[in-house]
Amino acid sequence: MPRPLILHPDRLLPADPATRALARALYAEVAGLPIISPHGHTDPSWFAGNAPFGNATELLLVPDHYLFRMLYSQGVPLERLGIGNSDADPRAAWRILSENYHLFRGTPSRMWCDWVFAEAFGIDVLLAADTADLYFDTITAALATESFRPRALFERFNIEVIATTESPLDTLEHHVAIRASGWAGRVITAYRPDPVVDPEYIDGNGGFRENLALFSSLTGEDCFTWPGYLAAHHQRRAFFASMGATSTDHGHPTALTANLSPAEAEALFRKVSAGQFTAQEAELFRAQMLTEMAGMSIEDGLVMQLHPGSFRNHNAALFAHFGRDKGADIPSRTDYVQALKPLLDRFGNDPRLSLILFTLDESAYARELAPLAGHYPCLKLGPAWWFHDSPEGMLRFRRMTTETAGFYNTVGFNDDTRAFLSIPARHDVARRIDCGFLAELVMEHRMEDWEAAELSQGLAYDFAKQAYRL
Amino acid sequence: MPRPLILHPDRLLPADPATRALARALYAEVAGLPIISPHGHTDPSWFAGNAPFGNATELLLVPDHYLFRMLYSQGVPLERLGIGNSDADPRAAWRILSENYHLFRGTPSRMWCDWVFAEAFGIDVLLAADTADLYFDTITAALATESFRPRALFERFNIEVIATTESPLDTLEHHVAIRASGWAGRVITAYRPDPVVDPEYIDGNGGFRENLALFSSLTGEDCFTWPGYLAAHHQRRAFFASMGATSTDHGHPTALTANLSPAEAEALFRKVSAGQFTAQEAELFRAQMLTEMAGMSIEDGLVMQLHPGSFRNHNAALFAHFGRDKGADIPSRTDYVQALKPLLDRFGNDPRLSLILFTLDESAYARELAPLAGHYPCLKLGPAWWFHDSPEGMLRFRRMTTETAGFYNTVGFNDDTRAFLSIPARHDVARRIDCGFLAELVMEHRMEDWEAAELSQGLAYDFAKQAYRL
Amino acid sequence: MPRPLILHPDRLLPADPATRALARALYAEVAGLPIISPHGHTDPSWFAGNAPFGNATELLLVPDHYLFRMLYSQGVPLERLGIGNSDADPRAAWRILSENYHLFRGTPSRMWCDWVFAEAFGIDVLLAADTADLYFDTITAALATESFRPRALFERFNIEVIATTESPLDTLEHHVAIRASGWAGRVITAYRPDPVVDPEYIDGNGGFRENLALFSSLTGEDCFTWPGYLAAHHQRRAFFASMGATSTDHGHPTALTANLSPAEAEALFRKVSAGQFTAQEAELFRAQMLTEMAGMSIEDGLVMQLHPGSFRNHNAALFAHFGRDKGADIPSRTDYVQALKPLLDRFGNDPRLSLILFTLDESAYARELAPLAGHYPCLKLGPAWWFHDSPEGMLRFRRMTTETAGFYNTVGFNDDTRAFLSIPARHDVARRIDCGFLAELVMEHRMEDWEAAELSQGLAYDFAKQAYRL
Repeated sequence: MPRPLILHPDRLLPADPATRALARALYAEVAGLPIISPHGHTDPSWFAGNAPFGNATELLLVPDHYLFRMLYSQGVPLERLGIGNSDADPRAAWRILSENYHLFRGTPSRMWCDWVFAEAFGIDVLLAADTADLYFDTITAALATESFRPRALFERFNIEVIATTESPLDTLEHHVAIRASGWAGRVITAYRPDPVVDPEYIDGNGGFRENLALFSSLTGEDCFTWPGYLAAHHQRRAFFASMGATSTDHGHPTALTANLSPAEAEALFRKVSAGQFTAQEAELFRAQMLTEMAGMSIEDGLVMQLHPGSFRNHNAALFAHFGRDKGADIPSRTDYVQALKPLLDRFGNDPRLSLILFTLDESAYARELAPLAGHYPCLKLGPAWWFHDSPEGMLRFRRMTTETAGFYNTVGFNDDTRAFLSIPARHDVARRIDCGFLAELVMEHRMEDWEAAELSQGLAYDFAKQAYRL
Repeated sequence: MPRPLILHPDRLLPADPATRALARALYAEVAGLPIISPHGHTDPSWFAGNAPFGNATELLLVPDHYLFRMLYSQGVPLERLGIGNSDADPRAAWRILSENYHLFRGTPSRMWCDWVFAEAFGIDVLLAADTADLYFDTITAALATESFRPRALFERFNIEVIATTESPLDTLEHHVAIRASGWAGRVITAYRPDPVVDPEYIDGNGGFRENLALFSSLTGEDCFTWPGYLAAHHQRRAFFASMGATSTDHGHPTALTANLSPAEAEALFRKVSAGQFTAQEAELFRAQMLTEMAGMSIEDGLVMQLHPGSFRNHNAALFAHFGRDKGADIPSRTDYVQALKPLLDRFGNDPRLSLILFTLDESAYARELAPLAGHYPCLKLGPAWWFHDSPEGMLRFRRMTTETAGFYNTVGFNDDTRAFLSIPARHDVARRIDCGFLAELVMEHRMEDWEAAELSQGLAYDFAKQAYRL
Repeated sequence: MPRPLILHPDRLLPADPATRALARALYAEVAGLPIISPHGHTDPSWFAGNAPFGNATELLLVPDHYLFRMLYSQGVPLERLGIGNSDADPRAAWRILSENYHLFRGTPSRMWCDWVFAEAFGIDVLLAADTADLYFDTITAALATESFRPRALFERFNIEVIATTESPLDTLEHHVAIRASGWAGRVITAYRPDPVVDPEYIDGNGGFRENLALFSSLTGEDCFTWPGYLAAHHQRRAFFASMGATSTDHGHPTALTANLSPAEAEALFRKVSAGQFTAQEAELFRAQMLTEMAGMSIEDGLVMQLHPGSFRNHNAALFAHFGRDKGADIPSRTDYVQALKPLLDRFGNDPRLSLILFTLDESAYARELAPLAGHYPCLKLGPAWWFHDSPEGMLRFRRMTTETAGFYNTVGFNDDTRAFLSIPARHDVARRIDCGFLAELVMEHRMEDWEAAELSQGLAYDFAKQAYRL
């Protein structure tokens, strides 16, 4: 007999009864606030075209690297899940997920999925081998209905604003189409220049030099010259801003910044744009571009985000066969103190700059990031990111940053996801964890209850709007 | 008046009453499960010869580097404890431990010892200066009885299987003797090749080159040639497997692996086997040997264990006077992401390989180890190790690995000890801590109670059997 | 209407009712113990001259880099707070703090300040925009009274002994004056030789070579020769000891030590004293001087303290404009295992040496510091330091060090502050957190209640006296 699927109203709140009562009261006030999603990876074509999503597997499993990486770690070949293999039977793939759903016990994927199943689709039994087909059929049938089209879900999810992330080479045609459609949903873009900033960039469409050629043709600038290249960035940033962008995003291997003289920067650009560079020169160029981008942000007001520290595509064979973003990105040790100094020496005290820092290296929270954000006016801390976007991960973030950086040098929550249906669940987890943490502070008389109420509202809604200038 | 010695039935369970009740219920189901001890350092001669242990000091103090390192840190000379000094009076040494037993407050040694005193020996007063002689006499008298012989204790402790750890140079005569004796206790070996893999290895019997000579005479291969050396490993691994081994164990200074061409590997071997090598070449050779061992594991099915990150014999004067394993091994920062890539590039997606990773650098749990184990099919995480084999250490391990790697990419508990009498206490601590952690997840509605019950059984028993192919 | 200012009697004690009751009982026994403050930065001239403090801003805001760094991080120019700007209106500066007091929610500054406001000044409303003037007037008026003079506060705070920190170039005239005055308050100095040990030292009065010249004239030694330089240290250490010093303090960028031969050390000194050295040579000289200082400590009995790992004056523009100690010191990753080995190889087993280690890199607690202190007889662990001198920071320290180093290899609390009025609050936070941690251990039956009572007394009072030989 199937087990019931239960979303307990007190889930994720602290176990101590008095603390839980306080947390519950705090949470009740923020649970229904609109969603501010200032950083994520949803596909703007969903909202432009508003076409129905496909089936359960195509929507929920194939794009979710949290799910298929765990299955892969336990020996399930990716091909059987339909990844890099359009011949796979979606129902058979779904059955594999169902039979292995116990693997996700104790992980945030389990909580996000259960929310999607229960709240978005109204399913009341737990996913398992014996409910696989019921799930597949229920979800697939629902997806064919009007109320599961992208715009309907956007409205049902109470999303006030959502940012997607695009390359400077993107035409933003979907954002243009959304605006032209007259639909009131606020979907904005963000400027993610890695494909034209990283000399070592490579994807299915080519690499850095191919991208510079595209960058040139898109902007009319000669992007193989340093002035033309910089002018092209200026131009595209302005276009992105006109499509609602309030931020840029930088996904570098490290947090290294540089502060070269114009002549040095130009000489370095000549090397990398000619494809004649060492790994060290590539790193230096990325470093210099962070500082260039900071300079542009001071002019155009786009908030910078830096997401360093992921060793991308660690599994060489998997990358060769399946390409990027297949669950094989592994965090590594990340320094901020030396790395950010060149940028901070140049712009760190400029009140117009806002740079939001993320990390996958939690050892930097208390040691580097909180002290930096608790001093420099331009710095703020992004929320617990990626592998740390989880109950324990969020709690560690608060425990290790709050005492030095305070709450007000943080920026609320980012869902950072392409898993559209789980967005409310992710924000809900963050709200619950923050309310639980605040309730603890009240119980230990480190804060009054009315202060916790102000902060829970800030963390759930206000801080993200302010930090991202939304 | 002596203080009572109390082992509270709820020890180590969470303080919150409702959580404790849940934890107690989970624990009740696993408290009596047989012990699977897949990694440890008990002496097989105990079980072969079944001779009585000596006195309290000889059995409990002299071999326990947790105990004497703490005493040494507070100024007690090791000689007075009988270490490197057979003239020391065992009773006088025991009195020193007793007078200083307060030093262990808050440490796992205290919990393990108290269990041994209360459960194994039935003592009901706390160890202190005024009970030192009572303890010494009670324990020493008990050890002379039949029921305290090694095999009797093995049976009383409900040990289903225990692995010892031997060098390839070991004849395994005690394992042969155990099998020949007809005794039903399952004592198996594990293949720990460090003495013939580490060019910088040194102990009282000599170093790497002396060991290669022994390796040659033991196997009939010419272990000063690369093919002969590899053949000798193949031969000894097969012999170890015939003596029950299901695993190998590698105690390297770092986790570095390499993937040299056969010609490069052979050239490197020529240097190290000639004793003509730099520190870097020694490190590269160890690195290459991990990859060679992984290749052999794919063939013969032995599970690999990697225990990196200990700076051995940090105290130079102590090492010169007393030798290895005197409590002066200090953990250091350990990288896994870059270090393991060569091995993983070669074998990481092979379903036949199983590599269990340990660490002394907890900053790697959430940043590196959980993401690696949550992706690569060959990787699993060993339990909290050595200094972290403790209530707080185990909880940190679960909190920092579960959300990314899940429970099912972990392998249950290892006691990793030579302190035979404390083995049940160590497994009991792990079971209690895991049940407490699971109870928390249930209380916060991150998991259902029946799921926690399945997992507590897995963590206490099943996972170790499966992971070690026992 | 102003909010009430409430110091709850149970603040910082664990929320679980039974644990709180235990913690409250432990705390009741230690709350009133005298304060031992073996490491800090109060100004001895306060106690020598006993002049009244100025106004609220001058006493509480301008010297407190925890306060103004947070305000600066949120965009408040330091000049407006009166920092580097004697024209600023103290009342206007105080209003800025008041309006922004919410920024400190969840930080230790909030708890320390609230204690000062409520306990030292008797204020019963919360600091905010609408109470700014009330605060400024109340505090400033109180400071003009006899009972708020430095010596009166010292006595009211129940300070048994306090150590200040001085450079070897300091004449200690204030300490001489205190002793000459006949006042019974015990104010001692500590020897902090960084200005004459660090070849890269620089402050408003000059750098290392200027300091060597002063060192020469003060001691009559030729401090541009290695023997003269060492003799000058000997002489000043003896003088400091005669002014009550029982310790030295070393604020190095890293924990590196060296063990050069006398000839090598002398050759290196020739370079650095001539101002002709590389960054690496400066680092090596600092490293060698730690070992030299350890040798002198063995002779004269001064306890050594090592505070490494702060990247000083990270904000270049701020440093150029405002100088040192302006909240822009940022911790960085710190190694101890390799770094301390040269010193430990030379002196690590000498029972006369006592070296207290601090860190800003919490990842070293369990990995390096607890194992080192749990082995070497000369090593002890200083308390959670600087950014980690906070409720969560202190708890992390205990959780990550106790199981390996025990309690008895730690040294109680240091307030390490120049914020004189907050000293009782800081010790009170430490006592509460330690009692809460001990209560947890009792609740989980990891320790008996009478053991926790012994330890809470030790942590609050005895350990500091013993470790600092007071």
